[in-house]
Amino acid sequence: MPINHHRRGLPALAENRLNVGIFGLGTVGTGVARLLLNQRELLRARTGIDYRLKAAVDVRWGHHDLDLSAVVCSEDPAVIIDDPEIRVVVETIGGTEIAYDLVQRAICAGKHVVTANKALIATKGRELFKLAREHHVDLLFEASVGGGIPIIKGLKEGLVGNRIISMEGILNGTSNYVLTKMYQDGMEFDEALRQAQVKGFAEADPTLDISGYDAAHKLAILASIVSSAVVDFDRIPVEGIADITKLDIDFARSFGYVIKLLAIFKDTDSGLDLRVHPTLVPGSHLLASVNNELNAISVTGDFVGNTAFYGPGAGQLPTASAVVSDIVDLSKDLLLRNGVGFCNRTIDPCDSPRLAPLGEISNRFYIRFFAYDAPGILAQVGSIFGKFGISIASVLQMEIHGKDNYVPLVILTHQAKEAAMNEAIEEIAAQSFVWGKPLCLRLHR
Amino acid sequence: MPINHHRRGLPALAENRLNVGIFGLGTVGTGVARLLLNQRELLRARTGIDYRLKAAVDVRWGHHDLDLSAVVCSEDPAVIIDDPEIRVVVETIGGTEIAYDLVQRAICAGKHVVTANKALIATKGRELFKLAREHHVDLLFEASVGGGIPIIKGLKEGLVGNRIISMEGILNGTSNYVLTKMYQDGMEFDEALRQAQVKGFAEADPTLDISGYDAAHKLAILASIVSSAVVDFDRIPVEGIADITKLDIDFARSFGYVIKLLAIFKDTDSGLDLRVHPTLVPGSHLLASVNNELNAISVTGDFVGNTAFYGPGAGQLPTASAVVSDIVDLSKDLLLRNGVGFCNRTIDPCDSPRLAPLGEISNRFYIRFFAYDAPGILAQVGSIFGKFGISIASVLQMEIHGKDNYVPLVILTHQAKEAAMNEAIEEIAAQSFVWGKPLCLRLHR
Repeated sequence: MPINHHRRGLPALAENRLNVGIFGLGTVGTGVARLLLNQRELLRARTGIDYRLKAAVDVRWGHHDLDLSAVVCSEDPAVIIDDPEIRVVVETIGGTEIAYDLVQRAICAGKHVVTANKALIATKGRELFKLAREHHVDLLFEASVGGGIPIIKGLKEGLVGNRIISMEGILNGTSNYVLTKMYQDGMEFDEALRQAQVKGFAEADPTLDISGYDAAHKLAILASIVSSAVVDFDRIPVEGIADITKLDIDFARSFGYVIKLLAIFKDTDSGLDLRVHPTLVPGSHLLASVNNELNAISVTGDFVGNTAFYGPGAGQLPTASAVVSDIVDLSKDLLLRNGVGFCNRTIDPCDSPRLAPLGEISNRFYIRFFAYDAPGILAQVGSIFGKFGISIASVLQMEIHGKDNYVPLVILTHQAKEAAMNEAIEEIAAQSFVWGKPLCLRLHR
Repeated sequence: MPINHHRRGLPALAENRLNVGIFGLGTVGTGVARLLLNQRELLRARTGIDYRLKAAVDVRWGHHDLDLSAVVCSEDPAVIIDDPEIRVVVETIGGTEIAYDLVQRAICAGKHVVTANKALIATKGRELFKLAREHHVDLLFEASVGGGIPIIKGLKEGLVGNRIISMEGILNGTSNYVLTKMYQDGMEFDEALRQAQVKGFAEADPTLDISGYDAAHKLAILASIVSSAVVDFDRIPVEGIADITKLDIDFARSFGYVIKLLAIFKDTDSGLDLRVHPTLVPGSHLLASVNNELNAISVTGDFVGNTAFYGPGAGQLPTASAVVSDIVDLSKDLLLRNGVGFCNRTIDPCDSPRLAPLGEISNRFYIRFFAYDAPGILAQVGSIFGKFGISIASVLQMEIHGKDNYVPLVILTHQAKEAAMNEAIEEIAAQSFVWGKPLCLRLHR
C-alpha cells in the first residue's frame, strides 16, 4: 500500500518513527508485540509512521515465537522509563500494583501511556488522569472495554455530537459464556463455569468475572467517557451471576426471556443510573443473541438513535488490535502537536457525575423462591407485595419438587421501586414457609 | 461539562472557534444545522472548540423550525466559498452535479469538506481526493456509509492495525425494509415497497435502492478505505432484489435461510472479491436478525477477528451525528496543524486495487424456476448441472401451481464457480419445459 508524501508542518517525531516500549509480555503484551512486528509495513503504509517496538520489560521470559532480536528485552523498567526515544509506553502487566507504579513513572517521565488494564483505569483513573494532565501526556485505554471492539473511540469521537441517553452492554465474556451454556446446553452453573475454564474463557480464579466486578470496571470507564467526569467504580451497584440456577434460566425462557449479565447506563433526571446485574432480556432483543464469550454494547444517543457494537471482548489478538489503535492515535497527535495531550481532555479528573439513588429507580422484577407446598401461601405472598405497593404481573408455580415439600414459585412484577422491592423480599425471606434465599432479578426495560 | 485548559502550542483556529458553512438545507442539512445549534455547548465542553454555523446556502427556503437568525442564509454559494473565516464546508445537497461543482469550488478555495453523499464519493472520489490532496485539505464522508454508525472511523482508526479479510454489510435500508416485510408479514415485493414509501423509508423513485446500486456505492467507499486505493464503483457486480418473490422468501425459510441484500468484500489471493446481491443468510447469523430499515456491517480483521457495527443507516438526525463527528475530527486537525490534510492520506487517488474475476469465484447457489410438471424433467435438469460440473445439494419441488401446469422447482447447489453457473442457468432457461426466467441467488458462506 502506497504512502502519501504531502504532509507539511513540523513533525514532532524524528524521521516519522515512533519508538514504543511494552511493560509486560504476557498474553496481551505478546499480542501487541506481534502486531507491531508483523504489521509494521501495513501500519507504515496507512499512517506514514514507522512504529518500532524498541524495548520490552518483563520479569519472566518464557517461550514464545516472536523474533525479538531487534528489541531490547530486560527485567529493568529503566530501559523504557529512561530512554528518551521511547515516547509511548504500553502497559500490559495487569493488576493495580506494579502496573500502577510503572504507569505513574512513565507519565512522570513524559511518556504517553496505552493500557488494556480496566481495573487500573476503573480504580486509579482519577489519580492517573490528573497526573497525565500535569505532565501534558495522554493515557489511552481502548482495549480496557470490549477487547477489540472500538467502543471507546465510537463513543468519544464517532458519537461526539450526541448526548448519550443510555447504554447496555454485555461486557464480561466469562459470565456470558457461562449463561450461554446454561441456556443452550442446559448446564448447571458450576458445570458451565468449569467448561469456561477448560476452554480458556475463565481465569483459574473467576471471582472478578462471575461477581460482576469486571463488568462494573468497564461500566465505570464507559460512564466516565460519556459524562466527561470520573465515575468511581465502587459507587456502582453490582450483582453477579453465581446465584442463578438452571431453573431460573428455564423459567425465564418460559416467559420469553434470556438471562444476560448487563452493565447499564441511563442518564436520568436524578443523575446517572449505573448498574451491573443479571437481567431478563426479551428473546427478540439484539443482546439476547450475543452468545458465548462475545461482547456487545448497545448505545442510544439523542441524535444517532440506537446503535450497537459487537465483537470479541478479550483475547490476545483482539486486545492487541485495540492497543495499537491507541498507539496510532497518539502518534498522530505526537506527529502534529509536539506531544501535547489532547485525547483525554474530555474526562475531568476533578469532577464526578451525580449518580441516581438506586432505591428510587423503578424496574420490573423476577423473583424466584422455594415455598412450602400448602394452601394459602400464594395469598400470603400476594399480600406482602401488596403492602409495599408492588403489583404482580405473572405467577408461575410448577410441580418441580425441591427440598422436601418445597416448590419453586416465580413472580414477575410490574414496575416497582428498588427500595420497595428490597423490603418486600426481606419480608418474604423471613416467612416460615420460605426455604433458602429468594433470587431477585430485573427485567429489561 | 467542564472544559480543560491545558493545551499548549499554536492553535490554528482563531479563538478556538470553527466556522462552518452548509450547502443544502434539505433533510440531512437541516439535521446538521440542528445538531450544531442545539449541541453547541455540549460540543464546546467536549472538544474545547466552538462550532459556529456561520452560513447556509440553498435555492429553496421552505418552512423549518430552526432559529437561523445568527446564520447567513443565501442562495449564493459565494457567501461560503468566498468567506475566509469558513474553514469547513458541509455538502448535503445530494446528487453528483451541483454537489460535485460546489465541493470542487470549496476545495479549491482551501476549505475542508464533509459530505454525506455516497454517490458523489463513489463516482467522483478519485477526482475529489486528488483535488483535495493538491489543495492540502481533507474530504471526509463518515455519513456516506451506514448513516449514524461510525463504521468508517471504526475501519480507518479503530481497526487500523488489521488487514481486513472480509466485510459483509446490510447497507441499504430501503431494500432491507422490503425484504423484512416480505419475510415477516408475507407481503409480495410490490406491496412491501409501497409500504416502505408510505413510511418514508423509500424514495419516490426507489430504483437506486432496489437495484443494489446504492449499496454498491457504499461498498466501493468501504473497499477504498480498506484497500487504501480507489475502487471504481462501476467495477462492482451488482444484483438487486426486484426479482425476489414471496415464494423465494418462503423457500429460503424452509431451508433455514433469510434473504438479505448483502454488500460483500473479500480479500482473496486473486484480488478483492466485491459484490452486491441478495444472499441466503442462515437464520442464526447475526445479519439475519437485522431488520426493517436498519443497517449492519460485519467486519473480520486478521487480529481483531469478527466484529460488527449496527444502527440506523439513514435519517436526518443519525446522518447529522456522523457529519458532525467528521467536523470535529477536522477541527482537531485544524487546531493542531494549521489545516494540513491528514485523514485521507490512506486513500491513494492514483491507485486502484486488483479485483478478483467474478467468474472464478465459487459460491453455493439457490436456483428457482418454473418447470412443466411432467416426468423426467428433474433428470434433465440434473444432467445440465452435471455437464457443468455443478453438484446439487437439495431439491424442492412443491405442488404450488403457477401458470398453467408449471410448478416451482428449487435447487440448492454445492460450491460452484460463477462462470459455470451462468452457463448452466442459460441452458436451463432455454429448455422448452421452463417458463419465465430462472432466479439465481447465492448462499452465505
